[in-house]
Amino acid sequence: MTQRVLTGITTTGTPHLGNYVGAIRPAINASREPGVESFFFLADYHALIKCDDPDRIERSRLEIAATWLAAGLDTERVTFYRQSDIPETTELNWLLTCVTAKGQMNRAHAYKATVDAAVAAGEEPDANVTMGLYCYPILMAADILLFNAHRVPVGRDQVQHIEMARDVAQRFNHLFGKGKELFVLPQAEIEEGVATLPGLDGRKMSKSYDNTVPLFEGGAKALKEAVARIVTDSKLPGEPKDPEGAHLVTIHDAFADADTRAAFRADLRGGLGWGDAKQRVVQLIEAHVGPMRERYADLVAHPERIEDILQEGARKARATATPLLAELRQAVGLRRMVAAAKPQVAKAEGAGKSAVPVFKQYREADNLFYFKLTAADGALLLQSQGFAEGREAGGWVKRFKTEGAAALEGAPVTLGEGAENATVQAALAALVAAQE
Amino acid sequence: MTQRVLTGITTTGTPHLGNYVGAIRPAINASREPGVESFFFLADYHALIKCDDPDRIERSRLEIAATWLAAGLDTERVTFYRQSDIPETTELNWLLTCVTAKGQMNRAHAYKATVDAAVAAGEEPDANVTMGLYCYPILMAADILLFNAHRVPVGRDQVQHIEMARDVAQRFNHLFGKGKELFVLPQAEIEEGVATLPGLDGRKMSKSYDNTVPLFEGGAKALKEAVARIVTDSKLPGEPKDPEGAHLVTIHDAFADADTRAAFRADLRGGLGWGDAKQRVVQLIEAHVGPMRERYADLVAHPERIEDILQEGARKARATATPLLAELRQAVGLRRMVAAAKPQVAKAEGAGKSAVPVFKQYREADNLFYFKLTAADGALLLQSQGFAEGREAGGWVKRFKTEGAAALEGAPVTLGEGAENATVQAALAALVAAQE
Repeated sequence: MTQRVLTGITTTGTPHLGNYVGAIRPAINASREPGVESFFFLADYHALIKCDDPDRIERSRLEIAATWLAAGLDTERVTFYRQSDIPETTELNWLLTCVTAKGQMNRAHAYKATVDAAVAAGEEPDANVTMGLYCYPILMAADILLFNAHRVPVGRDQVQHIEMARDVAQRFNHLFGKGKELFVLPQAEIEEGVATLPGLDGRKMSKSYDNTVPLFEGGAKALKEAVARIVTDSKLPGEPKDPEGAHLVTIHDAFADADTRAAFRADLRGGLGWGDAKQRVVQLIEAHVGPMRERYADLVAHPERIEDILQEGARKARATATPLLAELRQAVGLRRMVAAAKPQVAKAEGAGKSAVPVFKQYREADNLFYFKLTAADGALLLQSQGFAEGREAGGWVKRFKTEGAAALEGAPVTLGEGAENATVQAALAALVAAQE
Repeated sequence: MTQRVLTGITTTGTPHLGNYVGAIRPAINASREPGVESFFFLADYHALIKCDDPDRIERSRLEIAATWLAAGLDTERVTFYRQSDIPETTELNWLLTCVTAKGQMNRAHAYKATVDAAVAAGEEPDANVTMGLYCYPILMAADILLFNAHRVPVGRDQVQHIEMARDVAQRFNHLFGKGKELFVLPQAEIEEGVATLPGLDGRKMSKSYDNTVPLFEGGAKALKEAVARIVTDSKLPGEPKDPEGAHLVTIHDAFADADTRAAFRADLRGGLGWGDAKQRVVQLIEAHVGPMRERYADLVAHPERIEDILQEGARKARATATPLLAELRQAVGLRRMVAAAKPQVAKAEGAGKSAVPVFKQYREADNLFYFKLTAADGALLLQSQGFAEGREAGGWVKRFKTEGAAALEGAPVTLGEGAENATVQAALAALVAAQE
């Protein structure tokens, strides 16, 4: 079975080489595996929690989207969208808020850490807690459950949040599912094997240690300057050097194939000077990162192209999210008020089975997906427009089958020639009844 | 200035005569005052906090909508909608969540009362608190601020929530307004003068005292039976009775004009029997409520009509909410990524002023409202469809002026004949620039 994998991307800060090697590259590689359907989203609603500088929010979002696209995220293959383009996110957030116990939120690590720090500083426990910080695990659960993701790759610090998402999904299924699993229970996928790149000083590369190598910022020149500052021992050119434990070698290896790695080690043991070695590392990284940097610069110069990509991603994402939310609204009681229909379903005489109206989905020569609803006698009742994705057509058919005529408003369909509104409504009511 | 008044309607339970006299009738009367623009909404997202029975949620919502409509709410004059039909509500809820301090929520009365009760019962403080209960003042702030309501009629117990809404509005304006008041600061309007109707036993009529007179339930028969059970003293027919302090008289007065009130008192003092007096009260109430009950029954039998009314209400409500939310998204940094446009605004030679493109709003013979965008040289760039409400057209013009070309997607406009997309985009960019 296809596994749905969902990756949230923080939209604050500027990615460095360690982010690329430790997070971006492996996630993009994983999205290319067969049997995986990947969702990547820019978590910009989350960004609002920590940042009240609108221009920085805007700028970060642009840079980070451009980084992932430049690094090779294939938006034909994956669904890449912006959280804030999916209105279903905040609606589901509220539905989940109503079934979450406050006691559970009190146990969240991030919240507890903030409280502990305040208490240690002699302040009120909640002195530095905004409701955004406190409620954020619920929003994260909404992000995940809205797409019924099976797996969520996260760092260790996020495992608890995935457990919370499982809990709330389970409670929701229990309260409202009537035996049906409305939500898939997501699994945390802990990124254990992932290489953490050492920084200039050998500690983990991190902005908080001020030891980063830039990914795109400052171009090849900044890359060269940063690599020059990587700490090595003070052996002179000609002296044999021990490649094991040298941070420069670890950074080198992140961009080298097996042969190149072996050659680099042999040359260091043979006396290659650190200066020359660094030169090689710069060339190696530049060969990998240089073409990306060009794509990045081009994207950042054309924000409207990124916008188009994200809008297309939002469309794909909502093809999944909208029908699910419709089902959830139905389940909790936020239903449209519909006429108590008593459809007269004609028996096709002698046919030996009840003739009900039928939805048909098909693809036309224009390569778009369509559906239509035909009456028992074959008359065309509804005709859809064309969709780029088959699942969009499927999503609408599903809505019609669960909501009946209530789904008509705003639906991308036209009445068949000569078909009467009342006939269509009765047919849809019959289909809904047939589902129950 | 027109005052915007917003009234939230709880969608749980079945309204009784006390609700009608104390809440429904005065609110409907207030909505008929000149200079008032009223918003009434069914607070069904709130209903989810207390109720996990979907069928009850659905049923209550229907009955309560039908009650208000039957009682004379004029949906041509007011905006009557369902909270859950306005997706902007939960999105604003999240924006406000991010700027609300948790300490403030800890001081909310409803939350504190639940905690106190748990502690008194020897339980964990948060034992009976859901996140829905805890966070609900923020959702309420979103309900109010989304429509920039000036006044919110509430009971005393809700005054604190309006203060919270003011606080969060003020903080948001300060953080993101750049000197502009994004939100109106709402005022609580405390319902002091409102008659509270006594129940059968003389205490306030309330479901929790089991002393209610039904409004529509059970028809005239149930009304008669309930009134028969109103407690009186045991004076016999013929004995003079003191009308002051008699609950029956208070209930009578709620439906009587001055003359009828005076006559009723005189007759009681003259020895009118309680049985006959009750008969009169039943007739008086029935004359008022009977026609409503018929309308109510008709509405409940045709839920699809209520649905149509609510959909129309949602459309009207969103004509206000959608442009405001677009402005808020812009303010917090959730912006579309747009090309850095360098519009070439042609100077009309000799005209002595810079000629910029212009939006024009107007009304056609079809009574619908339109807008169009014309270039400096008068060429038609954009033409809108017709809107039932002038403010819808105005909302779109406002969006175009703040968002520029980003507002084009999904906008109800067509390009003018011969107008090129690039020209339109440049014109919109010029308008946005002119605003700044």
